[in-house]
Amino acid sequence: MNADDALELIRSRRSTRRFLDKPLEDEKLEQIIEAGRYAPSGGNSQTTHFLVIRKKEVLRELADLVRQEFSKMEVTEGMYRSLAAAVRASRDESYVFHYSAPVLILVANRRSYCNNMADSSCALENMMIMANALDLGSCWINQVHWLTDNPVIREYLAGLGIPGEACVCGGLAVGYPDTADGLPDRRPLPRTGNPVSYID
Amino acid sequence: MNADDALELIRSRRSTRRFLDKPLEDEKLEQIIEAGRYAPSGGNSQTTHFLVIRKKEVLRELADLVRQEFSKMEVTEGMYRSLAAAVRASRDESYVFHYSAPVLILVANRRSYCNNMADSSCALENMMIMANALDLGSCWINQVHWLTDNPVIREYLAGLGIPGEACVCGGLAVGYPDTADGLPDRRPLPRTGNPVSYID
Repeated sequence: MNADDALELIRSRRSTRRFLDKPLEDEKLEQIIEAGRYAPSGGNSQTTHFLVIRKKEVLRELADLVRQEFSKMEVTEGMYRSLAAAVRASRDESYVFHYSAPVLILVANRRSYCNNMADSSCALENMMIMANALDLGSCWINQVHWLTDNPVIREYLAGLGIPGEACVCGGLAVGYPDTADGLPDRRPLPRTGNPVSYID
Repeated sequence: MNADDALELIRSRRSTRRFLDKPLEDEKLEQIIEAGRYAPSGGNSQTTHFLVIRKKEVLRELADLVRQEFSKMEVTEGMYRSLAAAVRASRDESYVFHYSAPVLILVANRRSYCNNMADSSCALENMMIMANALDLGSCWINQVHWLTDNPVIREYLAGLGIPGEACVCGGLAVGYPDTADGLPDRRPLPRTGNPVSYID
């Protein structure tokens, strides 16, 4: 693998928030999950659990429940900006947190495991890179993570096989991007933050 | 970028824990940091801070301090296995948590920012993949993260420019792997865990 190509693949990954209503081929989905499973884990524990939701009925039910639960919340001072945006968006009945992507992958881990966010995030990043390599769009989805302690969401997730001792660390919406050329937008977002300092 | 090549790059990334005493070229280091900086961040906040330590004296001082602080700790019941291993290893004066790699990149973020572990971990994963693409070895290093609230370590990090309101989310040892052929070990570790379930 050419290093310049690898850097370009990484640099050109961007969030996709508009998806075509088109199913994702099993083979592509498997490659994305494979990339996630091969992320490093603390002590090679491999406890990250991938819940892959493609069933339209479940995607719709989950979207409705998430909207319903956010709509009970109030925006409070100092609330994280993206969370506040979700709470505000939930006032609109058309709000669908997973952008109606054909696939939502919830990444869960053991609640008591101190590297749960680290391991799960590495898996999510691998899946985003792999989606980009496949000309697919993807977007990190935090809404179920934010609601991981919400009783209504927990009960629904339990029905999908996520046990009570697990927490949802993040999620990924993935599918074909709804763009003019059918390819994900790949213009690298400029880096204005991310300070780098050197001790030489 | 060929999707199969991308998956192979991701699958073949492994932790390197033996490094040559050989400096890393600036150009390669810059590509690794660039990969880290282009990781996604919550709301594109780009708050991840990369502290790149190459100065041998600082690498040695930090290794000594980390060993010293771990050596004051006791292994307790239920302690995370890798942390317990570090505590035990610190009894030996030769313990160097960063495996004497020529470069240690500490990844810090705002303590009060709810996505600090997620963003930092995505950056670390990108850097590990990029190191692999450059035929370099790397290893996630958690010791400074575990000691991020330790007063001695905090004071030392403050002197290196990590402010008190920041936490160290992780670290990366990177350099030339000490192997027979000079290349990182790339045999994919089998996946025995990582359950995947489908809602179709």
